[in-house]
Amino acid sequence: MGKYKRLPKHIGVIPDGNRRWAVGKGMSKHDGYDYGIGPGMKLYEACLELGVEEMTYYGFTMDNVKRPSLQTKAFQKACVDSVNALKEKDADLLVLGNTDSKVFPKELLPYANKRTKFGEGKMKVNFLVNYGWNWDLNHALKETTEESSTDFTKGIASKDISRMDMILRWGGRRRLSGFLPVQSIYSDIYVFNELWPAYKDEHLHEALSWYQETDVTLGG
Amino acid sequence: MGKYKRLPKHIGVIPDGNRRWAVGKGMSKHDGYDYGIGPGMKLYEACLELGVEEMTYYGFTMDNVKRPSLQTKAFQKACVDSVNALKEKDADLLVLGNTDSKVFPKELLPYANKRTKFGEGKMKVNFLVNYGWNWDLNHALKETTEESSTDFTKGIASKDISRMDMILRWGGRRRLSGFLPVQSIYSDIYVFNELWPAYKDEHLHEALSWYQETDVTLGG
Repeated sequence: MGKYKRLPKHIGVIPDGNRRWAVGKGMSKHDGYDYGIGPGMKLYEACLELGVEEMTYYGFTMDNVKRPSLQTKAFQKACVDSVNALKEKDADLLVLGNTDSKVFPKELLPYANKRTKFGEGKMKVNFLVNYGWNWDLNHALKETTEESSTDFTKGIASKDISRMDMILRWGGRRRLSGFLPVQSIYSDIYVFNELWPAYKDEHLHEALSWYQETDVTLGG
Repeated sequence: MGKYKRLPKHIGVIPDGNRRWAVGKGMSKHDGYDYGIGPGMKLYEACLELGVEEMTYYGFTMDNVKRPSLQTKAFQKACVDSVNALKEKDADLLVLGNTDSKVFPKELLPYANKRTKFGEGKMKVNFLVNYGWNWDLNHALKETTEESSTDFTKGIASKDISRMDMILRWGGRRRLSGFLPVQSIYSDIYVFNELWPAYKDEHLHEALSWYQETDVTLGG
C-alpha cells in the first residue's frame, strides 16, 4: 500500500493465451484453462493488498462457446472454480452474463446479475460469464426507465459495473475483443506478450509503473 | 499494392499529440493543430495507394470543446481545412458529429451525417467532428425502427460507419478515448509514441508489418 502515487480504482483483466500456453507445454489446448485459475487468484490478492477497489475478469463470451466442446467445458469449469475460489477470499461478487442459455454454468446462477458479499467483502469483483457486448448493449433497448430513456448507459446489462481505469491483457493481442464497450471508453490498455498462465506479480507492477507516467483526461 | 498479404479494410486514426508537439517546438499549444493537416493527407494518400477501403479520422469531440477557446478554434479550423483537402483528393466523404451546437463548424454542415462523393470517390473517408460516444449511442434510443428495436447497432448515429480492423493512435496514449465504441470492438490497436505532426509513412508500414503477424478472430 502507498507504493504507487496513482492507483487505478478499477482494473479489468483479459486473461488470454491459455490455449497457446498449453500447446507450448505439449498439452492439449483445453488443458490450458485450468492453469489460469491460480494466476487469477494471485492477481486478485496482489490488487487487494495494493488497495484496488474493483476488478473485472473477462471469463468467457457468447462467441467463445462456438469453440469445440472440450474447450467450452474446460473454460466453463475454470470460471466456476475461479468464482468458488473468490468466494473464499472476501470478494464482493457479481457474476454478469446471459443466463438464458444452457452454456451458462448452473453452479453460478445464484450469483448471476446481482452482487453477493462473501466474508468481509473487501473488493468488488465482477466476473463476466457467457457475456456478449451486443447482449449487454441491447439490454438498453428492452427495459426503459425514465433515466435510461435518455441515458443509454443506465439501461445496459452491465450498468452496475463502473468505468475501468486500466485494462490488463495477457497474450499479446492489442484489442478489447468486446470487453465492456462502455466501461472501457477511457481505460488505459496495457498488453503483456506473456501468456496468461505465466502470470507473475511483476507483470502487475510493470503495468502500474507505466500507469504512473500516463495522464488521465477522460476525453477532456 | 500487393505489398501486404493482409490489409485492414478499414483503418481508424487517432491523431493525438499536436499540442505536445507544438510545445516541444517552442510554439503555443494551439499552434500544433495546423501541423496535423499535412500528415492526415499523407496518411490518406499512402492508404489509398495500398488499397485500404475505408478510413475514419477522430477529429474532435464534444468533450474537447471544453478546452481554451484558442485551442478550440484551432482544431475546428484544422478539421475544416482537412475536409477541404480531402475533397480535392477523391474522397467519398462522411462528416459525422453533433450538428446541434455552435461548435460544429458551419463550413462542414453540407457534408454532415451523409456521404458525398468527390471526384472518383476512391475511398470512404469518415471524419468525426464534434462527436461524442454517448451522443452516438444515445441516438439508438431516439429513433427506433423495426430493425433497431432489437439490434442496437442499427440505431446508433454512426451506423453507416463499418467495423474498424485497425486503429492507429499517435502520441503514446494506450486508450480509445471514446472513439466509436461499437466499431472498435474487435479492432487491433497500434500505438505510436511519436506525436501526430511527426507522422511518417514508415509508421504506417511499421503497423502493417505488425498486423501481418496478428490473427483476426472476431471474438471466436
